[in-house]
Amino acid sequence: MRIIPAEQFNLSREVEYGTSAQNEAAREIVEAVRKEGDTALLRYTEQHDRIKLDAGKLRVTEAEIQAAYAHVDAAFLTAIRKAAANIRAFHEKQKRNSWMDLQPDGTLLGQIIRPLRRVGVYVPGGKAAYPSSVLMNVIPAQVAGVPEIVMVTPPSTGGQEGINPFILVAAAEAGVKELYRVGGAQAIAALAYGTETIEPVDKITGPGNIYVALAKRLVFGVVNIDSIAGPSEIAVLADDTANPVYVAADLLSQAEHDEMASSILVTSSKDLAEAVSQEVERQLKELPREEIARKSIESYGAILLTSSIDEGIEVINKLAPEHLEIMTKDSMELLGRIENAGAIFIGAYSSEPVGDYFAGPNHILPTNGTARFSSPVNVDDYIKKSSLIYYSKEALLQNGEHIIALARHEGLEGHARAIEVRLERELNA
Amino acid sequence: MRIIPAEQFNLSREVEYGTSAQNEAAREIVEAVRKEGDTALLRYTEQHDRIKLDAGKLRVTEAEIQAAYAHVDAAFLTAIRKAAANIRAFHEKQKRNSWMDLQPDGTLLGQIIRPLRRVGVYVPGGKAAYPSSVLMNVIPAQVAGVPEIVMVTPPSTGGQEGINPFILVAAAEAGVKELYRVGGAQAIAALAYGTETIEPVDKITGPGNIYVALAKRLVFGVVNIDSIAGPSEIAVLADDTANPVYVAADLLSQAEHDEMASSILVTSSKDLAEAVSQEVERQLKELPREEIARKSIESYGAILLTSSIDEGIEVINKLAPEHLEIMTKDSMELLGRIENAGAIFIGAYSSEPVGDYFAGPNHILPTNGTARFSSPVNVDDYIKKSSLIYYSKEALLQNGEHIIALARHEGLEGHARAIEVRLERELNA
Repeated sequence: MRIIPAEQFNLSREVEYGTSAQNEAAREIVEAVRKEGDTALLRYTEQHDRIKLDAGKLRVTEAEIQAAYAHVDAAFLTAIRKAAANIRAFHEKQKRNSWMDLQPDGTLLGQIIRPLRRVGVYVPGGKAAYPSSVLMNVIPAQVAGVPEIVMVTPPSTGGQEGINPFILVAAAEAGVKELYRVGGAQAIAALAYGTETIEPVDKITGPGNIYVALAKRLVFGVVNIDSIAGPSEIAVLADDTANPVYVAADLLSQAEHDEMASSILVTSSKDLAEAVSQEVERQLKELPREEIARKSIESYGAILLTSSIDEGIEVINKLAPEHLEIMTKDSMELLGRIENAGAIFIGAYSSEPVGDYFAGPNHILPTNGTARFSSPVNVDDYIKKSSLIYYSKEALLQNGEHIIALARHEGLEGHARAIEVRLERELNA
Repeated sequence: MRIIPAEQFNLSREVEYGTSAQNEAAREIVEAVRKEGDTALLRYTEQHDRIKLDAGKLRVTEAEIQAAYAHVDAAFLTAIRKAAANIRAFHEKQKRNSWMDLQPDGTLLGQIIRPLRRVGVYVPGGKAAYPSSVLMNVIPAQVAGVPEIVMVTPPSTGGQEGINPFILVAAAEAGVKELYRVGGAQAIAALAYGTETIEPVDKITGPGNIYVALAKRLVFGVVNIDSIAGPSEIAVLADDTANPVYVAADLLSQAEHDEMASSILVTSSKDLAEAVSQEVERQLKELPREEIARKSIESYGAILLTSSIDEGIEVINKLAPEHLEIMTKDSMELLGRIENAGAIFIGAYSSEPVGDYFAGPNHILPTNGTARFSSPVNVDDYIKKSSLIYYSKEALLQNGEHIIALARHEGLEGHARAIEVRLERELNA
């Protein structure tokens, strides 16, 4: 793994948002489903997933979900139940109440918090099935109180009843009751506009391939969407107290995700840099996904040498990494100086997979430097706020003149008069 | 004003997101500023605003801001100060603390809340200057703790030193210290990518013309943006206890904004419907902005007759109006049944301008039905969250096997090994 002075590293990474042909294809699919409903949905399912369904078969039955349990092992079931409980407990702490501010003149102001009514979760199909992503998307919505959570996932001929049983069990454990076997841009369009079979939703979340991502962009505004995820990243900030075996293993756990993933060690210790570099090479050879991980390490991986921990923190704040591990002598002390990071893992035992699967915080995190202004998926993503204004007669009589003054200065006489008609009537009453 | 049965009203409204020529123009400007910096910024300012500046004159000086105070009257100053205090007090209540969840095995999980570092606020120039929008954009950012708030507004030859003094005073009262006389798509590009004179920001908020809106879409991802505002809307839900003079005045205060604005009364009272319709006509004739308001009422206004309050609530929830006024016998009782609305005004004295200017809640609200999934501008829009995971050795030894099981079921062996190397070492230690 290359070791370079931090100042020589180019922090910026361009992200591809699809070719114009891909954009065109996504637009065509979205428009067709919008106009033709189920007919288009089934046509694209046949074209892209090579499965001929009729509309009555789109919805996955309760019996199919229950049958999936026979296909998963006890260790998985125990693990996913414990993970779900941890994720639920953490997100419960994010819940917020509506509040009111009561004023002595009788005025009530407030902020009302309500769950979204209906949310759609996209779960990718294909070879790599990620039951953990089902939990991370569904549980925050559930904790927020969303009454209708609908899941879509492409059918595949491989698994049980066409859908991976681990995905079905994760969905059932998370509490999903409405599930359709449909994927791609056509599934996004169905969720946004609705079809004869699928009712439209208010928000769509969950990762997918480039067509899914482009379709989500197209329907944004009709519904809300989560952010478009880029390739995954980890940065490790470490000093010579860190164990190079652990650091290397964590860098590689990120690198194995995909060739575009980025794994970066930031350290002022040359010894650690050398040791991690060697460890990465040693552990790489033993990885089943060696080829992917190696490409990722070679293209986007680096060990950045800094002159001090202070410079290291500066580099981290510029990177704004999706995942940050801190393995230094006084890790907790540095926390107050980390401005930008999606999730921060502190100490030798907080390996990134602890957060990816189990601890409780969400694993859907801002990528590609967007931790500067974005947050992990959380309960707030599944609620909406309304302001409440109950102005008393006394308050209006007291303050009406100021409201009128401001309206007139903006040239909005109609606004001024809406107040004035009330003042006139009430003062003369 | 037309009175129609509610079921005959078409609730959906298409929104225009710019012609392809406008998109092309915005893209060209953004790219030029990105590449050429100040040079392009000044060139477009000369082209579009007809003002030749050099880079040294872009920033508005403290002396210019102070000089603006001589050009505003005492009534305005008193009103804007009271409004600012109310807005600040309301938004203070939205602030949230970072929290930690301490577990008996030594594990700490948490959610860290931090302000964005640098935010850019766009303030439109031209004839209609809206000092209230300056307060509504800036104060929530300030309450969130954003250390750098920078404002941009196009120079105009009309006002004091090229910028409307009411805008300058509102900015000063809100606490803005960094202000540039630059507008249009070029200002958005400068905020997103930075130039020699203007440092880039993390988020851009504030309304603007179509080029500003399109430029904001283009830079989304590089920075965060607020939502793209559509035309303004009001819905009034009223019964025969409502005063038709007040209802009509409030409908018109919305209609005078622009020809695309939408003003809707929902009622089951035919008497109120008739009375409001006549009142609207009477008050219209006295409005300085009669022409705009009349077009708005004719194109997008309606009185919707329902068979009951229940049907009325259903209509409101489908409309998801930006502003909702409720003037019925037991207004507060209906609150729990309103699912979708940006701001809810209760009772006879809570006229919309109370919220537009003065009460404290934000006047930047979700338009065009997006209250289904969006919220008023609030302090959360100017913060970011990070998750904190400090896993103890005991917790890892206890739960490591579950994490490994989940990773292996997802085919991510590198993730499993990152845990395994720790278990092996610590169990053998």
